[in-house]
Amino acid sequence: MLELKKNYSELAPTERVLLGAGPSGVDPRVLRAMSTPLLGHLDPEFIGIMNDTRDLLRYVFQTENLLTLPMSGTGSSGMDTVLSNLLEPGDKAIVAVCGVFGERMVDIAGRTGAEVKVINGEWGRIIETEQVEAAFNEMPDAKVFAFVHAETSTGILQPVEDIVRIAHEHGALVAMDCVTSLGGAPVLLDEWGIDAAYSGTQKCISCPPGLSPISMNAKAQEALHNRKTKVPSWYLDLTMIERYWGQERFYHHTAPISMVYALREALRIIAEEGLEARWARHELNAEAFAAGCEAMGLKPFAQEGYRLPSLVTLWIPEGVQDAAVRQHLLKEFNLEISGGLGPVKGQIWRVGLMGSNSTRKNIMFALTALCSALNAQGFKASASAALEAATAVYDAAGK
Amino acid sequence: MLELKKNYSELAPTERVLLGAGPSGVDPRVLRAMSTPLLGHLDPEFIGIMNDTRDLLRYVFQTENLLTLPMSGTGSSGMDTVLSNLLEPGDKAIVAVCGVFGERMVDIAGRTGAEVKVINGEWGRIIETEQVEAAFNEMPDAKVFAFVHAETSTGILQPVEDIVRIAHEHGALVAMDCVTSLGGAPVLLDEWGIDAAYSGTQKCISCPPGLSPISMNAKAQEALHNRKTKVPSWYLDLTMIERYWGQERFYHHTAPISMVYALREALRIIAEEGLEARWARHELNAEAFAAGCEAMGLKPFAQEGYRLPSLVTLWIPEGVQDAAVRQHLLKEFNLEISGGLGPVKGQIWRVGLMGSNSTRKNIMFALTALCSALNAQGFKASASAALEAATAVYDAAGK
Repeated sequence: MLELKKNYSELAPTERVLLGAGPSGVDPRVLRAMSTPLLGHLDPEFIGIMNDTRDLLRYVFQTENLLTLPMSGTGSSGMDTVLSNLLEPGDKAIVAVCGVFGERMVDIAGRTGAEVKVINGEWGRIIETEQVEAAFNEMPDAKVFAFVHAETSTGILQPVEDIVRIAHEHGALVAMDCVTSLGGAPVLLDEWGIDAAYSGTQKCISCPPGLSPISMNAKAQEALHNRKTKVPSWYLDLTMIERYWGQERFYHHTAPISMVYALREALRIIAEEGLEARWARHELNAEAFAAGCEAMGLKPFAQEGYRLPSLVTLWIPEGVQDAAVRQHLLKEFNLEISGGLGPVKGQIWRVGLMGSNSTRKNIMFALTALCSALNAQGFKASASAALEAATAVYDAAGK
Repeated sequence: MLELKKNYSELAPTERVLLGAGPSGVDPRVLRAMSTPLLGHLDPEFIGIMNDTRDLLRYVFQTENLLTLPMSGTGSSGMDTVLSNLLEPGDKAIVAVCGVFGERMVDIAGRTGAEVKVINGEWGRIIETEQVEAAFNEMPDAKVFAFVHAETSTGILQPVEDIVRIAHEHGALVAMDCVTSLGGAPVLLDEWGIDAAYSGTQKCISCPPGLSPISMNAKAQEALHNRKTKVPSWYLDLTMIERYWGQERFYHHTAPISMVYALREALRIIAEEGLEARWARHELNAEAFAAGCEAMGLKPFAQEGYRLPSLVTLWIPEGVQDAAVRQHLLKEFNLEISGGLGPVKGQIWRVGLMGSNSTRKNIMFALTALCSALNAQGFKASASAALEAATAVYDAAGK
């Protein structure tokens, strides 16, 4: 017998304020619901809980799509699911890229055997309508057009209307990544005509990571049912999973019971607040935080007019060490913010103001902590200027 | 705006005793650990927790395999991961089938584009050595031989030694499903020479569903690294995930933090009990339960000598309604047991005695409840005979 070489002590992590790119903080109600003793996954009571969760997801997605459910994996499993269920060898797809998650879509779409045309956008800027038009001119018979609504690597919120119209004029299905927008910024699947979308639970939903809400309309479902080949991954095969979450309750896999409990509670909290109030809260707090950052001399990274209310991105000032600042925040303040990914690694910070973490208290705390870390690096930032600027935003909004 | 049509009340499920095929009951310590406020998935403290979890998994798998980690999906994601990472178009595989989960392996192996040879075993019986020999005679160049150690659909525990030897004589990698045995019956990856294995958290580990522990030895990792094609599913691609759980900490997806907390605690509880004591406990309680069932006139379904200590399967007596009995147990006793799957649906029951649920108290309770349900169906079962027979087993063991 192989024996353990040490003792493993009781779990006792430090309490952090999670203002990174996700996971975000979780309401104690969600943690409590998650720790409820388990039902069996085919228990009639659990089926009721699945139905509630599906209904609440439809509200958050603003859709009546039948096929709306949480995939039993983290956010990226939803991306994999949507693309690998809609595409197969012989298909064509156009993918818009202006950050890491667009790039990931290209990787996944390529694995399906589909021919993939990439729209190369600029990091920190939106995809322009003309770029989408040009791509469809070169590939008019694309089956799927995929884009990222909220690019977590750059802090960009992509305008939707025009690019969806172009894709639909060419008969393409539109697949949208809303991992960092769902529950924090308007996501209106039916009104916008989005055919397929996926998200994650650990951003603006303020639920632990582990599930990926997805939704597909009837047109996307038809494409799914008309596949010539099996979906490559059994685990992510929606042709089977739709039967597990649908009327049939056909056994596929054991649902992650506790995570579904948590998601249901997180969605109830969203319903209590109301989506519109929640979007306004995210908007206001992001504005106040950005004003505070600019007042202390930091420059926003994302293109003006298209900035996410759930994730503020900032250029790291010259002469300031990325890692040293984030370590200062973590060690002195137990505050997590995120660094940049890919080509902007070491050049930007990403500050998530998501879900239950998007509060005036956190804004003021983060501004103070950031000033302290910058000052320690020799960058002169005034905490009082930052707090005044943020306060002015709240005052102007009458909050 | 689409509005919700009803209120969703606070989560308040009935408290059940889960003696079905999984999920099993969960120790309150695990629920408490799971509900600990979250760390970020790249927090140095979380990386320590990932390392602990990996070390504890190695102990439970009895392996020193570097590539040992929990996949971020439920048990079936582990099956998909192991097979779709080891197989690609042009490869050959032999899969042994004597139940639902062997059939699922065939489905998954087929999706990889590999040529699959199926060993058709009998439901409720083991795969015989001669069947494996015959398959390798017909397909001597199989790259992978896959089998189910503990067939959850029939209650069979497959002997391992001879079939592994045959596969290795032919140079095949051995992939083993130990979803219902890990933590409840001996699973000795290194001693048995298993090249790749996967399990689930929600059976004998007594942790909520949501993670799938997997382990691969150096030979299997080499096969992974020598692939000519990309793994079809990005989400399940071990060539990337091994870098996230390895030294590099290369970001792949956001780990399901709370589930990792839960798994670490469940594994700590196993380490405190000790694997050998845990296996003995499962063995004794299964023996007592089976003796009680036979004393009340029920016949075991699984082949004698090869019965799982974590899942007892029973023929449903003639004239007794499957659904009525299970409803009686659920309604009158809040006790869940499982029915049969596939060809034995309506013909057998499956009673899980897994992890923290494998207790003398539960055995006595389940025997009593089952007698009551059978009597309600007009099948005369004596509770006192059942309890005496079970008690005799404990007495003989000096417990």
